[in-house]
Amino acid sequence: MSISHFRDTLEVQELMERYRKVRARTVELCKPLGIEDYVPQPRFFASPPKWHLAHTSWFFEAMVLKPFAEKYNEYHEQFSYLFNSYYKTVGDRAVREERGAMTRPSVQEVMNYRAHVDSAMEEYITSDSAQDMLLLLELGTHHEQQHQELLITDLKHTFSLNPIFPVYRADSNHIIDHNDAVGWLSMSEGIYEIGHNSSGFCFDNELGRHKVYLHAYEISKSYVTNGEYIEFIKAGGYSDFSFWLDEGYEWISKENIDRPLYWYCIDGKWHYYTLAGLKPVDPEAILAHVSYYEAQAYATWRGMRLPTEQEWEAASDQLHYGKRWEWTGSAYLPYPGFKIAEGAAGEYNGKFMINTMVLRGGSVATPSKHCRPTYRNFFHPHHRWQYTGIRLAK
Amino acid sequence: MSISHFRDTLEVQELMERYRKVRARTVELCKPLGIEDYVPQPRFFASPPKWHLAHTSWFFEAMVLKPFAEKYNEYHEQFSYLFNSYYKTVGDRAVREERGAMTRPSVQEVMNYRAHVDSAMEEYITSDSAQDMLLLLELGTHHEQQHQELLITDLKHTFSLNPIFPVYRADSNHIIDHNDAVGWLSMSEGIYEIGHNSSGFCFDNELGRHKVYLHAYEISKSYVTNGEYIEFIKAGGYSDFSFWLDEGYEWISKENIDRPLYWYCIDGKWHYYTLAGLKPVDPEAILAHVSYYEAQAYATWRGMRLPTEQEWEAASDQLHYGKRWEWTGSAYLPYPGFKIAEGAAGEYNGKFMINTMVLRGGSVATPSKHCRPTYRNFFHPHHRWQYTGIRLAK
Amino acid sequence: MSISHFRDTLEVQELMERYRKVRARTVELCKPLGIEDYVPQPRFFASPPKWHLAHTSWFFEAMVLKPFAEKYNEYHEQFSYLFNSYYKTVGDRAVREERGAMTRPSVQEVMNYRAHVDSAMEEYITSDSAQDMLLLLELGTHHEQQHQELLITDLKHTFSLNPIFPVYRADSNHIIDHNDAVGWLSMSEGIYEIGHNSSGFCFDNELGRHKVYLHAYEISKSYVTNGEYIEFIKAGGYSDFSFWLDEGYEWISKENIDRPLYWYCIDGKWHYYTLAGLKPVDPEAILAHVSYYEAQAYATWRGMRLPTEQEWEAASDQLHYGKRWEWTGSAYLPYPGFKIAEGAAGEYNGKFMINTMVLRGGSVATPSKHCRPTYRNFFHPHHRWQYTGIRLAK
Amino acid sequence: MSISHFRDTLEVQELMERYRKVRARTVELCKPLGIEDYVPQPRFFASPPKWHLAHTSWFFEAMVLKPFAEKYNEYHEQFSYLFNSYYKTVGDRAVREERGAMTRPSVQEVMNYRAHVDSAMEEYITSDSAQDMLLLLELGTHHEQQHQELLITDLKHTFSLNPIFPVYRADSNHIIDHNDAVGWLSMSEGIYEIGHNSSGFCFDNELGRHKVYLHAYEISKSYVTNGEYIEFIKAGGYSDFSFWLDEGYEWISKENIDRPLYWYCIDGKWHYYTLAGLKPVDPEAILAHVSYYEAQAYATWRGMRLPTEQEWEAASDQLHYGKRWEWTGSAYLPYPGFKIAEGAAGEYNGKFMINTMVLRGGSVATPSKHCRPTYRNFFHPHHRWQYTGIRLAK
Repeated sequence: MSISHFRDTLEVQELMERYRKVRARTVELCKPLGIEDYVPQPRFFASPPKWHLAHTSWFFEAMVLKPFAEKYNEYHEQFSYLFNSYYKTVGDRAVREERGAMTRPSVQEVMNYRAHVDSAMEEYITSDSAQDMLLLLELGTHHEQQHQELLITDLKHTFSLNPIFPVYRADSNHIIDHNDAVGWLSMSEGIYEIGHNSSGFCFDNELGRHKVYLHAYEISKSYVTNGEYIEFIKAGGYSDFSFWLDEGYEWISKENIDRPLYWYCIDGKWHYYTLAGLKPVDPEAILAHVSYYEAQAYATWRGMRLPTEQEWEAASDQLHYGKRWEWTGSAYLPYPGFKIAEGAAGEYNGKFMINTMVLRGGSVATPSKHCRPTYRNFFHPHHRWQYTGIRLAK
Repeated sequence: MSISHFRDTLEVQELMERYRKVRARTVELCKPLGIEDYVPQPRFFASPPKWHLAHTSWFFEAMVLKPFAEKYNEYHEQFSYLFNSYYKTVGDRAVREERGAMTRPSVQEVMNYRAHVDSAMEEYITSDSAQDMLLLLELGTHHEQQHQELLITDLKHTFSLNPIFPVYRADSNHIIDHNDAVGWLSMSEGIYEIGHNSSGFCFDNELGRHKVYLHAYEISKSYVTNGEYIEFIKAGGYSDFSFWLDEGYEWISKENIDRPLYWYCIDGKWHYYTLAGLKPVDPEAILAHVSYYEAQAYATWRGMRLPTEQEWEAASDQLHYGKRWEWTGSAYLPYPGFKIAEGAAGEYNGKFMINTMVLRGGSVATPSKHCRPTYRNFFHPHHRWQYTGIRLAK
Repeated sequence: MSISHFRDTLEVQELMERYRKVRARTVELCKPLGIEDYVPQPRFFASPPKWHLAHTSWFFEAMVLKPFAEKYNEYHEQFSYLFNSYYKTVGDRAVREERGAMTRPSVQEVMNYRAHVDSAMEEYITSDSAQDMLLLLELGTHHEQQHQELLITDLKHTFSLNPIFPVYRADSNHIIDHNDAVGWLSMSEGIYEIGHNSSGFCFDNELGRHKVYLHAYEISKSYVTNGEYIEFIKAGGYSDFSFWLDEGYEWISKENIDRPLYWYCIDGKWHYYTLAGLKPVDPEAILAHVSYYEAQAYATWRGMRLPTEQEWEAASDQLHYGKRWEWTGSAYLPYPGFKIAEGAAGEYNGKFMINTMVLRGGSVATPSKHCRPTYRNFFHPHHRWQYTGIRLAK
Repeated sequence: MSISHFRDTLEVQELMERYRKVRARTVELCKPLGIEDYVPQPRFFASPPKWHLAHTSWFFEAMVLKPFAEKYNEYHEQFSYLFNSYYKTVGDRAVREERGAMTRPSVQEVMNYRAHVDSAMEEYITSDSAQDMLLLLELGTHHEQQHQELLITDLKHTFSLNPIFPVYRADSNHIIDHNDAVGWLSMSEGIYEIGHNSSGFCFDNELGRHKVYLHAYEISKSYVTNGEYIEFIKAGGYSDFSFWLDEGYEWISKENIDRPLYWYCIDGKWHYYTLAGLKPVDPEAILAHVSYYEAQAYATWRGMRLPTEQEWEAASDQLHYGKRWEWTGSAYLPYPGFKIAEGAAGEYNGKFMINTMVLRGGSVATPSKHCRPTYRNFFHPHHRWQYTGIRLAK
């Protein structure tokens, strides 16, 4: 497996600390859950908490322990089938849509599986043979952090379908955050360098640092707020075809969409479902849970546009960011010189370079220090169950 | 609500005993379950155990306690929305397909809800005002028994999707039962009476006892066995269009069906998933889990046919039955003089008199004494997650 | 091929006259068409006029000329593939949904094909070898008459999609016909005989004359009129769930149905598309183009029901009929003793005995003398592009 | 309507000649057709020849004659509804999927409509009031040329569904063309200018000439040939997941795709349907009718990639092109400074800037002189009924 690009150097002790911290964090996130909450997969695109817990362990078992750790005893031969998310190189996998039907193994047994893997991993990390594998091991921890974010957003989606509006944590401060800056940042025309360049970890799709020529542009220092977006709704934005992409308008028409995800109008006042329960919409807070279609239509209505990912990255050191995944106007495509890694580790980022748009930034659900300015997130333009928001450019 | 037809007389004490026994049985059925098992709804047509537990309580709350029991305190105002299965007269209801997403209320809270309803019901049953309602109360217990059967068959379906093949109860003897009789019963031409006629309970669709003229026929004393059905498979029955109804052939072609539900061929030998786990198919045991389409094709291949529901009922006192729901050749339609009950109790049997076929008999999952010779079960012709089997006629 | 049941005796000369008359009538029906009108198949269930013209010729070619007529020269080897509607015994066939894409052969070439087949058929009919085949030949003419009715109803459906509302024939008097009788016919309880019994032609599904026991009933002498149905619409019949079968209500909800097919409300007045163009609805005229679901809901709203097909047939000699295909309350299922004919001729009526309902009567589009009191037409309960109507029973 | 960007200057006489030539060419293309061929729309994405003929006339009527030509008599008030393809600003339009059901107006009447519009247009073009409109008038001719290409490719698709394999023109030399050059063109790193810059006509999506920074690359002087693609097929390219985008592999799996569109394997030899009928595949000829997914997988299998649209345009003056629409690795998105035109003319190119990929070049079906190096064609990645091909880069 060609993993030379993931990072230059990494010490065993640093990796061990990181491994322990990340693994503990996943379990920590599940503490407020009842056993029932671990099970459902109400939508194709989401996965049950129990599956996230098991899959992230499977990743280490399938990618590291089984191929490289001598004497490793596989926990259960069918778990490989049950908890492989995608990697066809590694063997068969259960049908994605059926994850919510897998009541067994139980939550307790999944926790036992995690402990089994952790024990073997900790032994393996300090072994001699692991020294060439540290970068792959680190990849596993970043992979788990991605699933931490999905675990939260998937859970929120499941809870949102329940008319009881379950509370994940009453003190959850998700999506009540405000802008730290206002106004516009002016960027001058010229050549900029884009892509990962530091000694730290990155994914393969960030590599291939290259030059781009950007024309002068302005990029907003602030995210669009709920109050600003309500103006768009009030102005009839959802029913005026002229602001929308053709497929966007078809999507809102077919799905009867006229507001961000999780919004409800109760007695004439906007509320939204949050992980702390149903709350009145704070007009000063930053908008979340809109699709690319909505972001694009809003920007058009404002007479502006979304920044490209290159414009975003070039300005990133002067922006406050990390509160929303910001839709950019860029399709998710390979950088010049992009190479897919060989083997199973290559079966991820490059496979989805079609029909998806790039998001930059990070969000309240992103594990701290997981993100960086060169990080390229991507989703289909109609998805909005992530904490997605809007930053304007002109 | 016109419920005069459900039964002639019923004593309070008899009802109370029945109520307690039925309610306890539902909980008893769930004992082998882990908490996770209560949650999923992997298919539209099935429901989670948790939902069955709550819905059967909701029935008493919505049909009896709220309208008739003075001073009844509703357990939770949103439960009515969550656990109403169908009855539009009684108010809004949650989307059927989302039942598997409702992780809250928890299993424990559903059990508390059951206890709350039971306590109020026991008080109500012995009250003066209940005396006119006994027949409706009995209807509720029969309704719950129907859900007991669904609880088991739905659970089996969920478990069957799990490649681990979970065991519900290791001593479960489901579908290993054998025929008690062989040969043919000859029935002579003439007028027979069909429909419910005793003083006991029945559903509205069994009422309207009426005369039918039957021509001479023979009906098998035995069910079709696994071994007999394997002959059909071996003979290429699933690939010869001539045996099939057009929509049946379309169905097996589109769904890639070439065997009964839950069957697997392992190393050339037939196995099936049972509630005791994966087991070799016993060729002497009675066939289960076939659709009407398969039953009809099998009968055609044998040069025979399925009995009509009238033929079945006319012969019923000379048949051993109750091991399988037997597909009949009759569409589910109203008897002469059929009247839909007014109000919510009328919103059930009559609503489904289109595109469904009648099944008679009962099954290993049917609560004992729930069934009777006039009982009319009905399903769409492609469904087979019930314990459905075949009895031939000629 | 076992065709002994189609009729007892038939003279060559009688058949020859019938053949010529029926074949000429199909072409006659197409006279008002432009070449463009012969081509489209806008819906799966309908077929283009050109296809009907060719398929009815193919029937004689494939069933009679190729297997039985010595020295017959097949017109074009690929026509068999193009114009086989269903008969799997006779070989491959083009995908049903693609009929509208077959611009070639041209209309002119299809007419040449008809002439080629007619010439060979006329020679064959008078040959010695045809004497044993006369009943099969007659079947072909009845088959063609069925397609004459479909040709008209399919064409009406295609035209109806055109906002220009094309006129087929300005003097077309379709669906402006009125009732010839009013009041109720009382039928007494007892045994009746059902099924075909005369020496004339019938289809296999009418055979197996048998006894049924009918309870006393009343059947309307008149069809439901447009004006009566408008009362149902005005009374909110389409939005009151209590009148509808569950699948019927689902169908009208999903398809946004609130009126008969081809009806338009223009400036507050009901109009309908007819083969003579768009016309105001005549309230005295007989209702047409309703589904079984609508017929059933209307009857329920009136506190009545639809007659069963046995009730209809038992009363048929005292009814005026033949103006509408009347939905009965009977599912389309085999009569006692029903046998599917061997070979291709058996691949028709018996294959559809599931999920369809029986219609009796005939319609303004039915060729004269094609129908008879024992004739069993059948369609899925949501179909309404035939001239379907309602007769009530109680 | 802001059309200032379409071109700088244009003389009346030049426009008149262009108008006449383009209009005549559309009719010329239809000469080999029978009346039946004008009607069908077998797929959502294609349109009938009759519709193309009428729609291109409607464009001039709706955009020019009705708003600007005094005294213009509309030909038929419902044609506007029937032949509006998309432009919501201009009013209602018929459902796109129903175009194939519109047998009326007849082909002859559509030709009369064209003559009516042509007569009015020729009068209008020479009128004083037209002088400010010349650029819009020219847009109409380019619009018609686009439909000329679609008319041919849509017709080919309809014909291809017919097992008779109709011949459009026996002398049609479509897709038997060969490469004019071989080898690789090396392009050096640096800043290039992209976008339309000449005084001639262009569409709005080509405007906004801007600088891009390109890294050094090589681009093939030749298109991929049938023979080269057959090697990919032989090597199992369609069944090896590693070469494919995830959605590409899903698409070929679901649609059972294992070869280019219109290819058939007959007795072990590749044939393809062409407008001259079914022909053996010439291995030296240039490949056509592949999707982006196939183009991308083929390039990956070769260890190469597709050029970006910027790379293509920068090299375009050194390439022979115009034989295939070449899939680029670029998503179809706005250039910097892209502005949607106001009014109906703006309702086209900008609306589709999502989920589509850019194609450059032109094809054998593109009207001569219609294309140019800055022309940006775009289709969804699974479409392949255009003459689409592959040029590699590395």
